[in-house]
Amino acid sequence: MPKPAFISLDGLDGTGKSTQCRLLVEWLTAQRVPVTACTDPGGTPLGQELRKLLLFGRDHTISTTTEAMLFMASRAQLVDEIIRPALDGGQVVVSDRFLLANVVYQGHAGGLNAADLWTVGRFVTGGLEPDLTLVFDLPPDVAVSRRNRAADRMEDRGEDYVTRVRTGFNYEAGMRPDRHRIIDATPDADAVQKVVRREVGRLLTERGWSLQE
Amino acid sequence: MPKPAFISLDGLDGTGKSTQCRLLVEWLTAQRVPVTACTDPGGTPLGQELRKLLLFGRDHTISTTTEAMLFMASRAQLVDEIIRPALDGGQVVVSDRFLLANVVYQGHAGGLNAADLWTVGRFVTGGLEPDLTLVFDLPPDVAVSRRNRAADRMEDRGEDYVTRVRTGFNYEAGMRPDRHRIIDATPDADAVQKVVRREVGRLLTERGWSLQE
Repeated sequence: MPKPAFISLDGLDGTGKSTQCRLLVEWLTAQRVPVTACTDPGGTPLGQELRKLLLFGRDHTISTTTEAMLFMASRAQLVDEIIRPALDGGQVVVSDRFLLANVVYQGHAGGLNAADLWTVGRFVTGGLEPDLTLVFDLPPDVAVSRRNRAADRMEDRGEDYVTRVRTGFNYEAGMRPDRHRIIDATPDADAVQKVVRREVGRLLTERGWSLQE
Repeated sequence: MPKPAFISLDGLDGTGKSTQCRLLVEWLTAQRVPVTACTDPGGTPLGQELRKLLLFGRDHTISTTTEAMLFMASRAQLVDEIIRPALDGGQVVVSDRFLLANVVYQGHAGGLNAADLWTVGRFVTGGLEPDLTLVFDLPPDVAVSRRNRAADRMEDRGEDYVTRVRTGFNYEAGMRPDRHRIIDATPDADAVQKVVRREVGRLLTERGWSLQE
């Protein structure tokens, strides 16, 4: 029996992370791998409400600590309602962002203590962490220019902020190289997806899944 | 100059805690003590939305961990927006519940680890804790029978749960006797308020406030 696996995709906005998630899930589905896709924050009815509050809630004053806790609340529900049951059912879970994003955005870039955020995160997830996190990387000016939506509450901060986010992702990935891969998101989506499939393919093959290119 | 003080009132539902808050604030105001009253969860625009979600959100599945994190988010905002500025301005703050309620309801009664909740709570409050917490106590059957509202999401649990809540409050108060007083809420509201005023009066006198009966 192949073993379940938990994969997250993370990194700066504008790196095409969500597109890569979609393409990855399509590929896995075509390979008959049972896959559950989710988004963090979001992914549950409660999470969707919190996501709205976090990303578009300009009516409310929200401190960085509050922001972090709302992400944690959404994640607690996501783990409990979606991710753990999927893993317990032997599936592969692909999450668009996870705890790392909090550590980077509210910690490294937002000024909260990164170690404290890991501690709170471990409490919230019951210690569950992705087996593999793909961190999509771009030079900050390229990431900023690629944003094709109206900036949301997180995104409408300046390039200095984006630089701190990038540095944070690279730092955290560098601290845990066994579970993180930094992927250059400069090439076009298909070229990046090839790298994604190679990395995910390696993990899933180790776990007993048989995959074709 | 008299010094600021942070006082919270906590305990089982049905103990008249909110009435005691109101009477205490009236008394302090009549004594010309500058007082800020707040409610946890709640107390800010964001907190009010989260309070609704927590107490009346029967539409959503909310795990105990998620619940704890939503309380923490609301509290983070309350500390940042209301409590710290009031204390920095030399005021006395009276809060209807605070972190202790999370430790008891989601921890002792809800099955989460109480020590972990203290840890998350200290992160959220930046280490701020009430100088004095009054814990209103009643036998569980009396507390249940005194509930005069339609039961909310927290309250519609059984008497076993209420007993675990009571035990939790007493345990935590017993661990930190310097900052907690257990107050018997069996007598009528005026009699209980006398005890409240005596306890609060003692703290405020120490801090340089001059008070009359």
